[in-house]
Amino acid sequence: MPITTTVNGVDLDRLTATTDAVVADPTLAGFQFRADNHWIDGGHSRTAIQGFFGVGHEDATRAEPFTVDADEPPVLLGHNLAPNAGEYLLHALAACLSGTIAYHAAARGIALDSLECVVDGDVDLRGFLGLDHTIRPGFQQIRVAITTTGDFNDTQLAELTDLTHFSPVRDSLTNPVPVTITIARG
Amino acid sequence: MPITTTVNGVDLDRLTATTDAVVADPTLAGFQFRADNHWIDGGHSRTAIQGFFGVGHEDATRAEPFTVDADEPPVLLGHNLAPNAGEYLLHALAACLSGTIAYHAAARGIALDSLECVVDGDVDLRGFLGLDHTIRPGFQQIRVAITTTGDFNDTQLAELTDLTHFSPVRDSLTNPVPVTITIARG
Repeated sequence: MPITTTVNGVDLDRLTATTDAVVADPTLAGFQFRADNHWIDGGHSRTAIQGFFGVGHEDATRAEPFTVDADEPPVLLGHNLAPNAGEYLLHALAACLSGTIAYHAAARGIALDSLECVVDGDVDLRGFLGLDHTIRPGFQQIRVAITTTGDFNDTQLAELTDLTHFSPVRDSLTNPVPVTITIARG
Repeated sequence: MPITTTVNGVDLDRLTATTDAVVADPTLAGFQFRADNHWIDGGHSRTAIQGFFGVGHEDATRAEPFTVDADEPPVLLGHNLAPNAGEYLLHALAACLSGTIAYHAAARGIALDSLECVVDGDVDLRGFLGLDHTIRPGFQQIRVAITTTGDFNDTQLAELTDLTHFSPVRDSLTNPVPVTITIARG
């Protein structure tokens, strides 16, 4: 039986193999992720998430799509059927920071016992409502408070902060992402 | 029984009342949304979403938190237990565009029958892996293809494109959001 080294639930042999493969052939690093959302009513919609492209091929490991609903709370004229889009954005950031730290810490031999990311973000509704064009519709500020336990010293704890710069969602929020939108009759 | 006007599932009387209240007292426009994520293993984590602040008070309409998992597919060393963080970001964008168009179209008297937002986005894994510091970890480009049917003419169809600028998640991606992160021992 082969000996595998797993830290933070991350198989380091596979992580090294993936990294080596991408170094040898950078075209393998190209990923395309997707989401297909159908509006239902008001602020309620449903997204199917299944296929993606990565490591040179179309992924086929998900037999069924994930289904994720979004809705608004009553104060925003919804029915609380699901979190709203802004909350999913914060979830995406928290989950991304969590995974990024777990993977990169593992690669550095830092074993974590627990990791919690508490995120909050400010929105001024006047931006969405179009009442004041100097107020952005989106988040004005997002704060993340991470607490963690594990087998690390204070120097390594500080290192974990730097690892968050590898987070794809953090980068997508702190630096502009070009978003192109087309609309057509269905 | 009062007569209510509902377009696209949006109660226009309540939308007008909310807008009027915010105009009269802009402090009501301040919202704070939240997410609390616990890392489980590898790329698997779980987020609780429940309370938020808005319209001058702490919301108490959600008796239980929403629970949302994230994971990675096998090619990214996960177990396909849930969508990954990048896919949730695309879901957040799609759901936000969907709701934004539905609400703002309703306010303009444009009735929609259907609305679909198909989103895809490109990531170069070398950014996440730290193999090339000139490559960003986040999305390099996101494309949204919206198809819609309803009671609108071509001029109004073009107007729907402009309405997407009111989307909080679109704004949060296309313009930088300050994200502050602290890490402490738990």
